[in-house]
Parts: sequence; C-alpha cells; structure tokens
Amino acid sequence: MKHAFLLAWLLTFGLRAAAQPATALTARLDQVSLTFALNAAGQPTYAVQLGGRPVVLPSRLGVALADGRGFEGALTLLGAETKDVDETWQPVWGEVRSIRNRYQQLTVHLQQPAAPGRRLDVVFRVFADGVGFRYEWPRQPQLQYFTVTDEHTEFNLPADHKAFWIPGDYDSNEYAYTSSRLSEVDTTPIKAIEKKAAPQRVQTPLMLKSADGLYVNIHEAALVNYPAMMLNVDRQTFRLSSQLVPDGTGTGAKAYLQAPEHTPWRTIVVADNAPAILASKLILNLNEPSKLQDTGWIRPQKYVGVWWEMQVGRASWSYADSSNIKLAGTDWTKLKPNGRHGANTQNVKRYIDFAAQHRIPGVLVEGWNVGWEDWVGNWKEDVFDFVTPYPDFNVAELQQYAAAKGVQLIMHHETAGSATNYERRQDAAYRFMQQHGYAAVKTGYVGRIIPRGEHHDGQWMVNHYVRTAQKTADSRLMVNMHEAVRPTGLHRTYPNWLANEAARGNEFNAFAEGSPPEHETILPFTRLMGGPMDYTPGIFKLQGYAAGAPQRQLHSTLAKQLALYVTLYSPLQMAADLPENYNEHLDAFQFIEDVPVDWDDTRILQAEPGDYLTIARQGKGTQEWYLGAITDENARQQTVKLDFLPAGRKYQAVIYADAPGASWDKNPAAYRISRQTVTSRSTLKLPLAPGGGAAVSLKPLAQ
Amino acid sequence: MKHAFLLAWLLTFGLRAAAQPATALTARLDQVSLTFALNAAGQPTYAVQLGGRPVVLPSRLGVALADGRGFEGALTLLGAETKDVDETWQPVWGEVRSIRNRYQQLTVHLQQPAAPGRRLDVVFRVFADGVGFRYEWPRQPQLQYFTVTDEHTEFNLPADHKAFWIPGDYDSNEYAYTSSRLSEVDTTPIKAIEKKAAPQRVQTPLMLKSADGLYVNIHEAALVNYPAMMLNVDRQTFRLSSQLVPDGTGTGAKAYLQAPEHTPWRTIVVADNAPAILASKLILNLNEPSKLQDTGWIRPQKYVGVWWEMQVGRASWSYADSSNIKLAGTDWTKLKPNGRHGANTQNVKRYIDFAAQHRIPGVLVEGWNVGWEDWVGNWKEDVFDFVTPYPDFNVAELQQYAAAKGVQLIMHHETAGSATNYERRQDAAYRFMQQHGYAAVKTGYVGRIIPRGEHHDGQWMVNHYVRTAQKTADSRLMVNMHEAVRPTGLHRTYPNWLANEAARGNEFNAFAEGSPPEHETILPFTRLMGGPMDYTPGIFKLQGYAAGAPQRQLHSTLAKQLALYVTLYSPLQMAADLPENYNEHLDAFQFIEDVPVDWDDTRILQAEPGDYLTIARQGKGTQEWYLGAITDENARQQTVKLDFLPAGRKYQAVIYADAPGASWDKNPAAYRISRQTVTSRSTLKLPLAPGGGAAVSLKPLAQ
Repeated sequence: MKHAFLLAWLLTFGLRAAAQPATALTARLDQVSLTFALNAAGQPTYAVQLGGRPVVLPSRLGVALADGRGFEGALTLLGAETKDVDETWQPVWGEVRSIRNRYQQLTVHLQQPAAPGRRLDVVFRVFADGVGFRYEWPRQPQLQYFTVTDEHTEFNLPADHKAFWIPGDYDSNEYAYTSSRLSEVDTTPIKAIEKKAAPQRVQTPLMLKSADGLYVNIHEAALVNYPAMMLNVDRQTFRLSSQLVPDGTGTGAKAYLQAPEHTPWRTIVVADNAPAILASKLILNLNEPSKLQDTGWIRPQKYVGVWWEMQVGRASWSYADSSNIKLAGTDWTKLKPNGRHGANTQNVKRYIDFAAQHRIPGVLVEGWNVGWEDWVGNWKEDVFDFVTPYPDFNVAELQQYAAAKGVQLIMHHETAGSATNYERRQDAAYRFMQQHGYAAVKTGYVGRIIPRGEHHDGQWMVNHYVRTAQKTADSRLMVNMHEAVRPTGLHRTYPNWLANEAARGNEFNAFAEGSPPEHETILPFTRLMGGPMDYTPGIFKLQGYAAGAPQRQLHSTLAKQLALYVTLYSPLQMAADLPENYNEHLDAFQFIEDVPVDWDDTRILQAEPGDYLTIARQGKGTQEWYLGAITDENARQQTVKLDFLPAGRKYQAVIYADAPGASWDKNPAAYRISRQTVTSRSTLKLPLAPGGGAAVSLKPLAQ
Repeated sequence: MKHAFLLAWLLTFGLRAAAQPATALTARLDQVSLTFALNAAGQPTYAVQLGGRPVVLPSRLGVALADGRGFEGALTLLGAETKDVDETWQPVWGEVRSIRNRYQQLTVHLQQPAAPGRRLDVVFRVFADGVGFRYEWPRQPQLQYFTVTDEHTEFNLPADHKAFWIPGDYDSNEYAYTSSRLSEVDTTPIKAIEKKAAPQRVQTPLMLKSADGLYVNIHEAALVNYPAMMLNVDRQTFRLSSQLVPDGTGTGAKAYLQAPEHTPWRTIVVADNAPAILASKLILNLNEPSKLQDTGWIRPQKYVGVWWEMQVGRASWSYADSSNIKLAGTDWTKLKPNGRHGANTQNVKRYIDFAAQHRIPGVLVEGWNVGWEDWVGNWKEDVFDFVTPYPDFNVAELQQYAAAKGVQLIMHHETAGSATNYERRQDAAYRFMQQHGYAAVKTGYVGRIIPRGEHHDGQWMVNHYVRTAQKTADSRLMVNMHEAVRPTGLHRTYPNWLANEAARGNEFNAFAEGSPPEHETILPFTRLMGGPMDYTPGIFKLQGYAAGAPQRQLHSTLAKQLALYVTLYSPLQMAADLPENYNEHLDAFQFIEDVPVDWDDTRILQAEPGDYLTIARQGKGTQEWYLGAITDENARQQTVKLDFLPAGRKYQAVIYADAPGASWDKNPAAYRISRQTVTSRSTLKLPLAPGGGAAVSLKPLAQ
C-alpha cells in the first residue's frame, strides 16, 4: 500500500523543484517514529523516537567507495515511498510457534547531484519495537562493481547511557562484558583474545540503558556479503559510528560489491522495559525466509560429548604428544600414543551409553581426526583433512554402536582458521559424514584466518560462513559454528544453522578464570539478540574439575546451570559435563533430560541486564512448561506468577532450586528439588543464591 | 658414496676448532666446478666455473626470517658430505626416451653460532651442464614454523652479459623479450601486462650470453610451497639477487614454512654452445619422480578448438552482451543471445568434424559455461561455476557426437583469477568432467587473484597450481594451465600436467600487435627451460584475420608456423586456426596432421637465442623424424646434415619451406612443398624467409 499523501508531497515539493526538501520524511508504527532528512550539507540523516522520547538524535548516513566517488557528500532526494506490512510466519524451530512481522517501510531514493550521478536508496522499516534500515544500490549503469571503504552510519545517542559492551576485536567476541557509561568506554585494560581493539571500539549487539529507563539495542540483521559492523564510541558526544571490519589486503577495503546489492540491516530495538527487548523478533523479521524447501530433517537436539574432559585438561584432543607434524606423509599409526587421547573408541562408547540412557540424541566427539598434535597458533594451511580418524577411533564401529542405541554422533570440523583448506575439503568431508551416519557438524575457527590477513568478521569469512550453511544444507546436514562472526538472525534463512558460539561460553570456566555470575544475565541482551548460542551449560562438578588449576570453579550454582537451559535459548543444547559427574546427581539431571530445545511459546517474566532473568517456555507440541530464573552475584527471591499456564488445569511443578546456604563461591552444589501442584493462579517464590538460579518443570496432571 | 677425505678434513679443521674453515669446499663434474666457502663475514657463499672460466663469481647465500633470527649473518660450518649419482630414468612423455641423471652432490651443514642455534643445510648438485642448489631446513627443535621474508641468494656475474629478459611482474609473464646488456636492463618503457615491475627486476628463466661465448641460464626447479624467484639486476656490478614474490598481506612475508622443508632448486645451466643449453635435462633431473603410479591414461595430443575465433574478435565467449551479471540467481535462458556465441552446439560440431577428419584427438571449447558476460577485471569471486553450460551448448549431445567420431572434448575452466572460487568448486567440476567424457582441462587465471592481494607467482598460488595438478590426477584428468606461474620441471612429478602457457603465446597476434619474429627463437632458451608451453601455433591465415584490426598480421610465415610444432616442444599442441582456414591449405596441414607430440629422441642441430633454431626429433615408437627450422627477422639459408638418421636407410623427406619471395610482412603465405629421398648422408639446404621457417617430415621408405 503506497502512502499517497507522501508521494503527493514529494511531487509537489521534492521532485518538481529538484531542490532539497524543506520537510522531513517520517514513518511510524505505534510508538516508534523514524524521521529522514537531508542536513544542511545535503547529507542524509535519520532520527528515531519512542513515544516522543528521543532514541537516536539526527544521525548521519553515508558510504565511502574506493574510487573516491561514493556517497559521503550531498545527495539529491529523488523520491520516496512507504508501505505497510502485517504478516505472520512460522519458524522451523524457535522460541515461539508463530511470529508476527508488522512494520511500516519508508524507501528513500537518493542520487549524487553531479556526475557520475550514482543512485543509492535507504530503506527503513519501522516496527513497534524499533527500526531497521539498510543501504541499497539499485541496478544502474553508473555503478556496477564497487569497493566500500567506509560506512558513515552514525547513532547519535541523546545521553550518556549505560552500555554493556565487549571490545571491537575483528577476530573474537569471547570477552566478558563490561558495564559502563558510554563516557567510560575504554578497552585498554582488557586482555586481547585475538587482536587488540581500538580503545573506544566495541562490538554489537550493543545493549544500552538510559537513565530514564529506555532500553536500546543496536545490532545488525542478515549479515551477508559484507563485513561485520563494529561501533566507535565518541565518549564526549555519545555518538556511535560504524566501523566495518577490513579485508586482508591492508588497503582499507571493506567490501567488494556488485550492484544491485544492499548492506545488512542496521537494527535499533527499543522499549521502555527490558523484557520487551528479549521478546523482540525485529532481527528475525528482517532476515529472509528459509531458503530450504524441505526442512523435515532438521532436528533441534540436546547432546553430550567428548569435550569437557579436554577443556579441563584431563584428556587431549591429540593422539600423540609429538609436535611439528605435517598432515601429508605422516603415518599416524607410527606415532607414540600419549595415553590421554579423549576420542578413543572405548571412551566414546561411554558417552553413547550415557546419552542412550538419558534420551540425549547427540554425541559430539572432538579430536577424532588427525592433525591435533600442533594444530593451533602456526597459521598453517594444511592442518586437518576432516576424513582421517586417529588409529584409536573406529568410525565404522562407533557408527554401528551408536545407531544400535538410537544415538547419532556429531561431527567436529576444527579448521584452525584455515578456511581455504576447509573449503577445498568440504565436499569430501560432507560425503564422509553422509557415509558414516553423521547428521550435524560443529565447526571451529580458532586462530588466525587463512586467506592470510583476513579477519573472522570480514566480508570474505562472512561469506564463508554463509556458504558453509548453504553447503551443509545441500547435504542435509545441520551446523553449529564456533569462532564464527556473531549471528544476525540468519538461522531464519538457513534453519540448519542451529547455533553459533561467537561469545564467551562456559568453556572459559574450564581453561581460564571464567566469567562473572552476571555474564548469563547479559548474554540474552547482547549476543543472543542475533541468534542461538551453543553455550554448553550443565556443569555439575563446579569445583576441582580443572587439572592443574585445583582452585578454579564455576561462577554458578548447580541449580543455575539447570536454569540456563531455559534462559539461554538454543535449539542445540549441550549437557557439557562428564557422565561420571552427572551420575552423582541424577535427580538434578532429570531436568536436563526433560527440558525441550524447541518451543511453542516464550514469556519473559523478569529481566534486567546484568542482574536477573526469569523466562518461561512451553515445549513444542506439548502442554508442558519450563521455567528458568537466574541472578548475578546477588541473592534474590523471585516471585513468579504462573498465569501463563492454561486456566483451570493442574500442573505438577518440580522445582530445582538453590538450597539454603548455597552460593556460587562457597557452596555451589547445594540444591533442593521439591514438587508441588500448581495452577495458573499459583505463585512461586524462588530463592536464588548468589550466582544462583532455579529451574522448574511444569507438567500437566491427568484431569 | 661419501667422500672420506672431505669428512676427514672437516673433522680436522672444521668441526674440532668450531672456527671458520680456512679452505673452501668443492664439488665438480666434468668441466663444471662448484666452490662453497664462508666469506670474511662468516656468510656462506658459492661460485661456479666451467673449465676454469668463471660462470658465477663468489656470491652470497642466505635467508631472512620474519622473527629477525634468520640466516643472514655469520654461520658456523658443522660439516659437509658429497655423493656421486649416476642413474637413468624414463619420462612418461618428453623429448627423449631416456634421461641420464648424473651429478656430484655436496651437502653443507650450517648453524647459527649463537642462540637459537638454528640449522640450515645447503645442497649443491653439480652436473656436466651446470649446478643446482637449494636451502634445506632439517627437523630441529629450534625451528619449526617460520616465515621467510627474503632470500639473499645472489648470482655475481663476471661481466656485462647480453641478457634475454622480461620484466619481473609478479602476475604475468606474457611479455615480449628484450635483448640487452645487463647494464641496460630497464623495464620502464615496457607496458605492464598486470603490474609494473621495479625497473631492474626481471624474471627467470633468464638467458645470458657472455662476450666470449658462454651461455648461461638461471632459473629454478621444483617450485613447490614457495614463491617464484625473480631477479634484481645491479647494472653496475652485474650482480643478480633473488626477489621472492610476496604474499597478499602486505607485510613483506614471502613464504610460510614448516621444518623439515626446503626451497626450490636454484639452477644455473651453462655451456660453451647454445644447443647444449636446450639439450640440458638439469631442471627435469632436479624434480622428483612421478607421484602418479598409473600413467597409462595420460595421452599427449594435438587439438583444435573454439578459441581463435574469439581471440580475433569474430565470436564471443559470452552468450549475451548483458553486463553486470551475477552467477547466482541468473536465468541464463532469459538472456538475449548476442548471436556471436562461439561455443554453440552446431559450431562445436564443425570442429569435431574437422578433428575427426584429420586425426586430431582433442577439441577445446572455451565459453561453454555461464559467466562470461562480465567475467574479467572486476575482482569478482563468484565468477564461474564450471558446471552450467550456456543454453545453446548441449553437453550430452556433443559428448555423444564427439565419441562417435573418436574425438574428445577438452574442458575449459577459466577462473578469472578467483582461485578460492575454483578450489571450492573443483570437486564438482571434475565430477562433471568425468560424467561427460572429458579427459583434459585447460585452466586460466586471467586477472587479479582471489584471495585478494595474492599474486599469480606467490606461494599461495604456487601451491594452488600444484594441488590442482594433483587433484586432476586423482580424477585421471590431464591439465594445461594458462596464466599460472612459469614451470620449473614439475611435469616430471605430475606427468598429467601436460603444459602451461606462462609466456607470450601466439594469441598476442590475435588481440594485440603480437611478438617480433625472434620471439620463438628466444622462448626455448627462456620460458621452455622449465617445461612445455601451450603456444598454440599453426595459424594459416596470417593477415586480415582480426575483426576490427584489418592491418594486423602474424610476424611469421606459414612455413614457420609448421616448424614451431618441432621447435617449441610440447606434448599438447594446438592447431590453433579455424577449420575454414586450414581447408584453404590442406597440403600444408598435412604436416600438422603428421607431426607427433611425443618423442624418442631430439637433436638440437643449430641454435642461437634471438636468431635461429633447427631441431630434429624422432617420433615416439617410430622411425619417423621431424625437423623444424626457424629464423628471426632475417632470411637465412640453413644447411642441415641428416646424420641423425639411421645409416643405410632411405627416407622420404617432405619439405614445407618458405617459397621464394616469402616474408612474414609482405608475403607470409607463400610456401612450397617438395619431396625428396634422403639418407643419413644427405644434406638439406633450407631457405628461411624473413620471419620464416621450414618443416620437414622424414618417413622411412619401404626397404
């Protein structure tokens, strides 16, 4: 539907005079309004308001090109149109059964006033909970192939908001979050994971909170064929400006494009309450529908794996301790086994047995394939071949053993950042998976990227991840990427792309000092805005697990580990601890065994970034509900109304709560399991210990 | 065999004192001697002599590493050993049936005198016709992964030799040769093909001639996992120093290595006569034996192709004239055909018919696959998919048509330099070839390389070419690479790698002004030292062939075009002209039909770089001989003794010669075919026109 008034206005004032319009263009939905205008210099700008309160003050738009004839200066407004969309779609899997996509779109057509007269459109979509916009280059003779060197997108914030941020490292997002005022953003004291970021450069999703209670989240949607956007923070003016991740040539090039083309959507989610941020489907709605026709083979799932024992230093990925191995020409049977190789046939069978006993469909095995002796840190191209098992890992035997027990092994493809090597071997690797009954693969990109000079978050790698999502789909394989760029909702388009890491996961509690208790209360407001995370929760042995670091412990109680299965949404959830540790607490493990990974409905009951989170979800195709509540380092008593349950139906609630005296640091494993009958009129009082949580299963009782 | 005296000497003087040896180490064979010594600064040096005449004066050796702890300074001589080798091997195909590999090897063990005490070996092989040497890094704890930033290999020449050179462009070798003194080397006036070289930087093989009649050729052998070596010329001192092609990061890195590893061989072929240079097998001998066990499927062959008509502008590679095409999402059947598409089914059948009529086994078809509308110059990654034919190219129909006539189509994979795209599609592309009866592929790398920043001749691409040779072999496919790095004898190791372009081919006469008549007299002394070239000779219509450039003509007579099939050795030879042009001269085409592409014996009868060349070869497994004689811009009468023929046997000689009055510029198509009976005691007088040549077939007469 076109807004005739706007076109009429343009025809009257804008197009006919070919002069800059005196008036701004506006789009709005409910309380959110977006204003586009050319500033005094003729440059395009936009601003966002929520119910009359400024969210983003007038902020510049623009794109610089390598040939010096980009879109940085004055532009002429050729015209504009709006349309209203209100539609509903069903995700293949997700937090809710059905998603409403309702927005008003404003498309602005711009042109360079002088030769070459290149054209640029800016498309805004205004939702009830925020705004998305992107640059689009229409097909035009004056612009075909071009190189973006800078994007001049700005977000002028009206005040010195509190921000939850991580450094703008082009190669890693595995940082703990810092909460600070914008005026205090400084990455200097933070130890670099890969490369040091500029002192005032941060990553998205960036979560912001204003002094007067506005919650604002800035990120991007549908990152394809373009580098990731980081943000440079001006600590005086509170202006955020886009910083695109450069390519590998060292020339300052950011993106090589061919018109017609468009950037990803820049997203601003805004609400006057924190739960509304978490409930937003704006980013998903800005992604394209599924490219896969047949999705029946895609199966959200829980899994265990030969993994934590390596993370904590009790087993090794490698078969031998030899260093300086070359993939070609090594006879692996001649190496001296180190006796600590985790991925040996007998050990894997233990995990298969445990999975089969506890209705866990998947078993990940890392370190199964040759090349781990000196895989990391050498910028080595031929690092893995993805098809040759170590001598003590019997692929065929394990395939049969797992199949007989109704379990499927999950493949692991660590690339060590050597993406070129992976790409040239993907065909063979996926054939190998199909031949040996694997349905899902976890990929990894630890270390410096090859093609050398490229970044994890640059255009070339962004395209690699998307190609890998498509290529795995072509072979009907699910994929879970670690160390890839943080997600931007592309799991809508590629529903076989179940999860990503792309943040600091639970593993940091294994091999390093870990993350503070608030970490998991921030993740949903930041990293998870883009999509599911393979966080690998479920650690039951919370102290004394790390070989060589006896004092190390999780910053979590056991009950909180259970709650994470609800609060950190993912269709792929690991039960990350060792079978022997679960066997010590099988009563608690029952919650992990019960909890679904796919949902019909989700309610964000309580939320405050950095503080607490309470979420209830209804299992897909069931009447069962599951509830998770977590807190930061502070104890809390959360009062939860169960009014999301269907009226008049009795439920048995099983409550997995911190026991009195529990705390993450002193007494993390103290939990108490209680049962009670509840209805939609019941209220639960959940005591959360410092660093604690509570998990509740709610199953309907027979009528 | 160890030379006990040398070891004893070392134990006495070298190792025990851990001081620099007072005496040099020497290896020699016949007239060639090699001397290794540490200079006053303790740096390793070498020198080469031929019969007491200096070939290379004492010259520095050394390698710099990125960590600053390389092999540039003083080194300690740990020891040395020599061995003598004399063996004979049979190439899968080639210029001769059997090759003798006879050399004395001197291995010098060096170590850094201070921490980290890294070790470096230099291995010299002294042949009767020159020297090869390389750097080797043994396995050692103090050096595992390392990055080479410079190789300080020098060639100090004793005088201001005449040199035949092309600019040291990292991305192209398609230059005409300049003949000049070393003191006059200057690439400034030369138009760059890809990137401009530094003014005094030239490529190898570099052919040199001293004032007193020494012929010296400098190149490298077995270029694997290392960048190509170019040479910087010092015009005052006549010192050549190695310049490795850099990688794509812009950091100055040249090669990423892992010990144990070695560089390619640096080769110096030397003789007191020009034919001995061409007869040298030194470079082949320095390459590894074939990696392929079964080579029965490898078939040297002639071919025709849908190619010259595009080169001369009479047909197009593309199906449509649309520009700005994207590979993904384009419906090629909806494009408007331009009506000039060469690779259409009917046109291809014409070539198949011609090939079948004239015993030509192969038909190359370029432009068969989608993507040619704007393939070049855009640094575009997804440029071709290698499996989708244009709508007017019927793969199955042509496969059947060709097979019925005993002809095989040759596949074409132009990559436009997008090697990453090719690598990720190679598996599918080679499966497609196997499914459709293709046995050979011509690859191309026109344009800037992707991974962006990499060079055609850098380490990453060198590895790509070698991988492609191995990967095609794995699928039993032959390969012919265009725009790849110049060869270094790797066809011994990968005999399915039939040919390369890697120099200025005949095509420059089609789309540009071409090469001077001397060009083909220089190529065997330069580019062909490394391996066969797909030069695409055999143009019969020598004037008026280029659409839009009616004055353009070849710098060759027709008879010379025939002679090239003998003088430019290749197991893959195109008959490059159009069938209709051959049909005008079927009597001359008989030579192309007859001439083999694989040989039992070869005699370099007359040779002088830049002037003339006369070569006779005996067809593989036959008693037939073929002779080619060519000249530069000067007419010559060459007197050729046929004493290479078996004594006492009568042969019919068919002589394809320039007719009186022929010349490349005024009367190029004037040829005369004559027949005479000859024996080993006969002498032929071959009149060569300016830019002319002569071709002779010699078939034994029935006894």
